[in-house]
Amino acid sequence: MQDVVAKSTERRFLKPFSGEAINPPPVWLMRQAGRYLPEYRATRKEAGSFLDLCYNPSLAAEVTLQPIRRYGFDASILFSDILVVPDALGQRVTFAEGEGPRLDPIREVAGLARLSLTNTGEKFGRVCETVSRLRQDLPRETTLIGFCGAPWTVATYMVEGRGSTDQGEARGWAYRDPAGFAQLIDILTEASIVYLTEQIKAGADVIQIFDSWAGSLAENQFQQWVVLPTARIVNALKSAYPHVPVIGFPRGAASQLAHFVEGTNVDGVSCDTSCPLGVMQMVAARGVVAQGNLDPLLLVAGGEALDRRVDEILDAMHGRRFVFNLGHGIVPETAPEHVAQLVERVRRSR
Amino acid sequence: MQDVVAKSTERRFLKPFSGEAINPPPVWLMRQAGRYLPEYRATRKEAGSFLDLCYNPSLAAEVTLQPIRRYGFDASILFSDILVVPDALGQRVTFAEGEGPRLDPIREVAGLARLSLTNTGEKFGRVCETVSRLRQDLPRETTLIGFCGAPWTVATYMVEGRGSTDQGEARGWAYRDPAGFAQLIDILTEASIVYLTEQIKAGADVIQIFDSWAGSLAENQFQQWVVLPTARIVNALKSAYPHVPVIGFPRGAASQLAHFVEGTNVDGVSCDTSCPLGVMQMVAARGVVAQGNLDPLLLVAGGEALDRRVDEILDAMHGRRFVFNLGHGIVPETAPEHVAQLVERVRRSR
Repeated sequence: MQDVVAKSTERRFLKPFSGEAINPPPVWLMRQAGRYLPEYRATRKEAGSFLDLCYNPSLAAEVTLQPIRRYGFDASILFSDILVVPDALGQRVTFAEGEGPRLDPIREVAGLARLSLTNTGEKFGRVCETVSRLRQDLPRETTLIGFCGAPWTVATYMVEGRGSTDQGEARGWAYRDPAGFAQLIDILTEASIVYLTEQIKAGADVIQIFDSWAGSLAENQFQQWVVLPTARIVNALKSAYPHVPVIGFPRGAASQLAHFVEGTNVDGVSCDTSCPLGVMQMVAARGVVAQGNLDPLLLVAGGEALDRRVDEILDAMHGRRFVFNLGHGIVPETAPEHVAQLVERVRRSR
Repeated sequence: MQDVVAKSTERRFLKPFSGEAINPPPVWLMRQAGRYLPEYRATRKEAGSFLDLCYNPSLAAEVTLQPIRRYGFDASILFSDILVVPDALGQRVTFAEGEGPRLDPIREVAGLARLSLTNTGEKFGRVCETVSRLRQDLPRETTLIGFCGAPWTVATYMVEGRGSTDQGEARGWAYRDPAGFAQLIDILTEASIVYLTEQIKAGADVIQIFDSWAGSLAENQFQQWVVLPTARIVNALKSAYPHVPVIGFPRGAASQLAHFVEGTNVDGVSCDTSCPLGVMQMVAARGVVAQGNLDPLLLVAGGEALDRRVDEILDAMHGRRFVFNLGHGIVPETAPEHVAQLVERVRRSR
């Protein structure tokens, strides 16, 4: 046991979270397992539906490991989807090919009767089986990140029934009936705590909470539906697992990051593509790890422009608590060679 | 002439732009002419297509005046659409009912041959005929705002062929071939200068430049495709019409507003719903008018929550250079009584 602890603290990824700025910084990429990789597309074909893949520990572990084998990232993120939580709660999720998720929407408090936390065990269990396998199969030096969607973002899909440009249905419900909407957020907060706790027990070293639609909220709503539920999750995890770092990702909310850091008690903040480097420096100056924020479309373009921007980000974050990442997930059109070019560029930096 | 000047400087809307913070602040609402009004829906039926309405000076003036008659806003904004510019340049625009705009996309530099600034006269002329009529028909105390879409945002529609969630095609082109994409931006910048100059000549008192998709850009791209083209437009207008205020609206870019203000020379910044009030105060402290930023969905909800948030915004901006507005346009589901409630609340503030 002593040995495991000693070795795990050698993981490069964790150093910035212990206050140690390292050069080159740790690097991983959101959606590093995915359609841009031919080996992913091959495994995907074996799996049936997209959610079948998420619930298949053997295949989900395999696609998680693929980019680690290729690129040796410092961290690996569990292959899964943020909509596992509503699916496990009883609001069935399907993925229309090329069209994104579809759910039978819940738009008022009566619809919450369809959800039950007591039934989540089997589906959460399958995901955690993937985590256990990964903890065994990953190289010892690779950090394993578990994750969930933040309550606000998951709620937007549950209320809209799909992705949307402005999250209008969810925002409207929150204004019209804040007490009812709070019940939905509470259910999701509880479910997230259970789900993440199980992931940590199964072997996740770090947790990331994805709040992809945080940027559409007015600041008072951001406080209520993003900061407070995230703080509840972080504090619940911290009380049981004080040494597991938690990274928040309130996408589109660069102007509210100082407040997010203060209000949530997160250990790190993933910064989206539009977040200025000065804001990332401010995040790091607050004793929190800043992660980000290369534009995934620059990774598609490649070439010198990619190198130049990688260097700008590295220069701006040099000597600070920093993890190199994208500002959003890798897109399917990305050439795998460009990812190799990026990783090499980061690894060679001094 | 002396009289006209004297009276026009009495317009309440213009006072914050002369450095005078007034209470209650001026108020108008983005998309104040639109589908939430029964009289708009009636006029819309007479018009044929949506662009037919934009190009019909009599009907476009009528719908522009409708909310002024109902609510007596301090400013009126020309009823038109940001896609008039590509349409006039030769990239035909249609509006599929309930689905938004459709254009035959331009995705490489060869496609720019379809565009010609020399052919814009007739369509720009019809819009400016609306402006002339409005300047005659509006109450003398009502400020008339002309507008265009910012080059970046208009380009995203021209490249995608429609609205999109992440403006990926335009951002991708800009990375892949910045010189080619710059040609498109230059054409739009030139066309915007011509178009806005004609609007001012026809009677527009103030100009607003809508950059709805500014928020998807990394900061170096924001500088290149938002700040620099906007600065070119503002400076061209200022050299001929130094006393016509120009308001920028880089939506989703709250974390970059200080830079936007410095870099563009705008007189005012419209702030979106997610912009913190502290950032609006910072904008006003830089000698620029801050405009915004009530959530349009709160205007749908109405009730005490609406009053409370209106008061919060008014309190935060009290004594500063400020124009009350929404953070985005009025949505069709809005009850006209809620707009009356809002205007009354603002007008009664001290």
